[in-house]
Amino acid sequence: MKQVLDYIEDNSTKFVEELREYIGFKSISAQPEYKDDTVECAHWLADKCKSLGLDTYIFETSGNPIVVATTRKKTAEDKPHVMIYGHYDVQPPDPLELWESPPFEPRINNGAIYGRGASDNKGQNWVYVKMCEAFMATGSLPCDITFLFEGEEEVGSEHLPEFLRTHRDMFDCDVAIVSDTAMPERNVPALTYGLRGIAALEVEVIGPSRDLHSGIYGGSIENPGMALCKMLSELRDSDGRVSVPGFYDDVLPLTPFEREQFSRLPFDEAAYKELLGVSSLFGEKGFSPWEQRTARPTIEINGITCGYQGEGSKTIIPSRASAKLSCRLVPNQQPELILSKLEDFLKRIRPPGVQLRILKGHQGNPYMFQPDSAYAKAAVRAIERTFSKEAVFTREGGSIPIVNDFKKVLDVDTLLIPLALPDDNHHSPNEKFDLECFRKGLKMGVLLMDEIRGIDA
Amino acid sequence: MKQVLDYIEDNSTKFVEELREYIGFKSISAQPEYKDDTVECAHWLADKCKSLGLDTYIFETSGNPIVVATTRKKTAEDKPHVMIYGHYDVQPPDPLELWESPPFEPRINNGAIYGRGASDNKGQNWVYVKMCEAFMATGSLPCDITFLFEGEEEVGSEHLPEFLRTHRDMFDCDVAIVSDTAMPERNVPALTYGLRGIAALEVEVIGPSRDLHSGIYGGSIENPGMALCKMLSELRDSDGRVSVPGFYDDVLPLTPFEREQFSRLPFDEAAYKELLGVSSLFGEKGFSPWEQRTARPTIEINGITCGYQGEGSKTIIPSRASAKLSCRLVPNQQPELILSKLEDFLKRIRPPGVQLRILKGHQGNPYMFQPDSAYAKAAVRAIERTFSKEAVFTREGGSIPIVNDFKKVLDVDTLLIPLALPDDNHHSPNEKFDLECFRKGLKMGVLLMDEIRGIDA
Repeated sequence: MKQVLDYIEDNSTKFVEELREYIGFKSISAQPEYKDDTVECAHWLADKCKSLGLDTYIFETSGNPIVVATTRKKTAEDKPHVMIYGHYDVQPPDPLELWESPPFEPRINNGAIYGRGASDNKGQNWVYVKMCEAFMATGSLPCDITFLFEGEEEVGSEHLPEFLRTHRDMFDCDVAIVSDTAMPERNVPALTYGLRGIAALEVEVIGPSRDLHSGIYGGSIENPGMALCKMLSELRDSDGRVSVPGFYDDVLPLTPFEREQFSRLPFDEAAYKELLGVSSLFGEKGFSPWEQRTARPTIEINGITCGYQGEGSKTIIPSRASAKLSCRLVPNQQPELILSKLEDFLKRIRPPGVQLRILKGHQGNPYMFQPDSAYAKAAVRAIERTFSKEAVFTREGGSIPIVNDFKKVLDVDTLLIPLALPDDNHHSPNEKFDLECFRKGLKMGVLLMDEIRGIDA
Repeated sequence: MKQVLDYIEDNSTKFVEELREYIGFKSISAQPEYKDDTVECAHWLADKCKSLGLDTYIFETSGNPIVVATTRKKTAEDKPHVMIYGHYDVQPPDPLELWESPPFEPRINNGAIYGRGASDNKGQNWVYVKMCEAFMATGSLPCDITFLFEGEEEVGSEHLPEFLRTHRDMFDCDVAIVSDTAMPERNVPALTYGLRGIAALEVEVIGPSRDLHSGIYGGSIENPGMALCKMLSELRDSDGRVSVPGFYDDVLPLTPFEREQFSRLPFDEAAYKELLGVSSLFGEKGFSPWEQRTARPTIEINGITCGYQGEGSKTIIPSRASAKLSCRLVPNQQPELILSKLEDFLKRIRPPGVQLRILKGHQGNPYMFQPDSAYAKAAVRAIERTFSKEAVFTREGGSIPIVNDFKKVLDVDTLLIPLALPDDNHHSPNEKFDLECFRKGLKMGVLLMDEIRGIDA
């Protein structure tokens, strides 16, 4: 192990230089004009894996290529098999004018590397490639590793689930690892054991066949905007609880262990309010903000469209009013079932005189693995050995839908190991990846392989 | 009188031909590119008045010209002085593709003349010019008449109130006449004795300083869209009554006489629902649709803007949510006072965790004159003599703000005499003016002058 860690120490400058090259690719999956750059990035990544001696494949899809690289031979040794997932595509860099240096010309400053994709997700997956190199250059890996890199994460991973199903054997592993979440704070190492799911729905209230003069007709028919407001206002009570009947039926209550973990997470209310620009917080009664935003379900209005929205006024009764809604879900809520309950409720509370049109939107399951499983314990030990500090268990409020496919198709848990910091500006200008996080990540990766090997021993 | 009415009979074809010319002008006040056409229309109208022997003036404003034409001499005779108001500007004709013939090439079909402005308001004011001609060609007028024609009614009559104040003496009259409302139905002659007022307000709910990721932050702060819906939903109860405290304080209750009049108005619920394209009606409990839309105050949502409104979904907590509201007011509600009560109420029901910004908008007083005044009775007699049918008293739900200025500046009531039909398509494609209404209007005008003369006798 010492040799491996020494190799990392000796080569850290080279690793960062390579990461700089990686971030330099404009692999913006949302923008078709960067298709060539994205494909080029996939090939660069495949070449790097190949040069380490990994069996490397580029799978074309009707979207962006999937890169697979593995140490695993047909004549399998008696080693655990670990799948490591990452994505090489990035968010668009807009608004460009807010960047302090060009997003695709990475710059090192104040102990961090800046650039689009620096930590979401190039930096966080580069850690594992380099961990692999350190083992292979100094001996051999304690586990077999198969890397799975996709180029469509930022646009919904359209082709990955089908790819997993058709190439199931390749990923017949013991556990998956994903570093695509954030630590609660610098120096607060954590293991993310849960993610929220999502269920989106659009509701349209349909009134008169055209916008009507509010003077001539106002008072004699229902206003679709008012009908929509009345309905939406009934979705949540003043205690912050969702009022849709049965909404909480399948919610796993937080265990005493979980609540104890959450209570250990740092939280500076004043700083949080300032970060968001709000004067006070609001959430479900009886839960802390950490619990509210990661382990409790929500219903949010994402947008409302109704009537006249220009300058000045137009005194109409609008013909239509519509809202985009989405629920964040927690285990064991099922998106399809939640949407049905929501739809039933909206239909039931529809005011007289208007019609409804309801359109169910995208869905993603919540995710959770047992924090006391053997693999979770191995991850915690690797994290604690790296940081010389007790790790906390966290859940995240966002979604990484593909981990549900890992569970469903491959029947494995995914260890979510955050290496990013909460201020790394994912999806925002001046994205960065902290170089201390990069170094700690490398060490954690090495120790994690060792710990996982230990499980089978 | 017979001579006057015979003149009308003999010249009706000529009158309609002239009206066709009048409608041909593209006097669209809202569109600056038609400024020349609008000014040309004012000059055409002034020339027509002059040719009758009226003292005619064109007053330039920083907007469109005001045309004044009068029979009144400095050495005033002992005659009643009647002011007749009309506007020569028209609404834009869009959407053009829905017109069955070009909007400014008037066409006679099925007993009506079609074209933009046909009844709003060219046809309805042309009636009075021609009534005047009939008297002057056959003898003399029983009353002095001063015509006031403006060219900015469709854009808010910006310059007229100030013009009235500075030229007060010119309009020192006994009563004003405006034909710019609609009969309840063909063959249901009416006198409109009330109009609703208006008070507009914009409310903005301010949440976080930027749109936030609903996964990462959702559950821990108030959603401005939800806060707005909760507030708006409290503005009106399920009985259709406005819930703002004190909103009804100054509302004049409907008298038994008024309710009896309203009950005589024709109302076909099925036809009304079909006209508006709604499956059922909704309004303040205890009042008929006629009462609800003309004699009871309302609060309407004219528009809502919040968050993401494009295709698909964007899972954000929107930073802002705003709504445009307007109240239709009835006597004796005061717009400024109503807006203050509304503002106070919104501030009081603001949910925690969001800020409010409230912007008061335009205001117009409600209007009503006593239906049993001498002038109202004279109008009713003229209407009944023309239609050989009892007239009904109606109120209208819309607003004609200038009539409040006639009251305030000139201290006169305005007789609102509807000559248009409810299906004349004001502000819509295929606007028309019924030629029977035109002929009846001419006769009514003649008889009205006679009746008004009788009041002073």
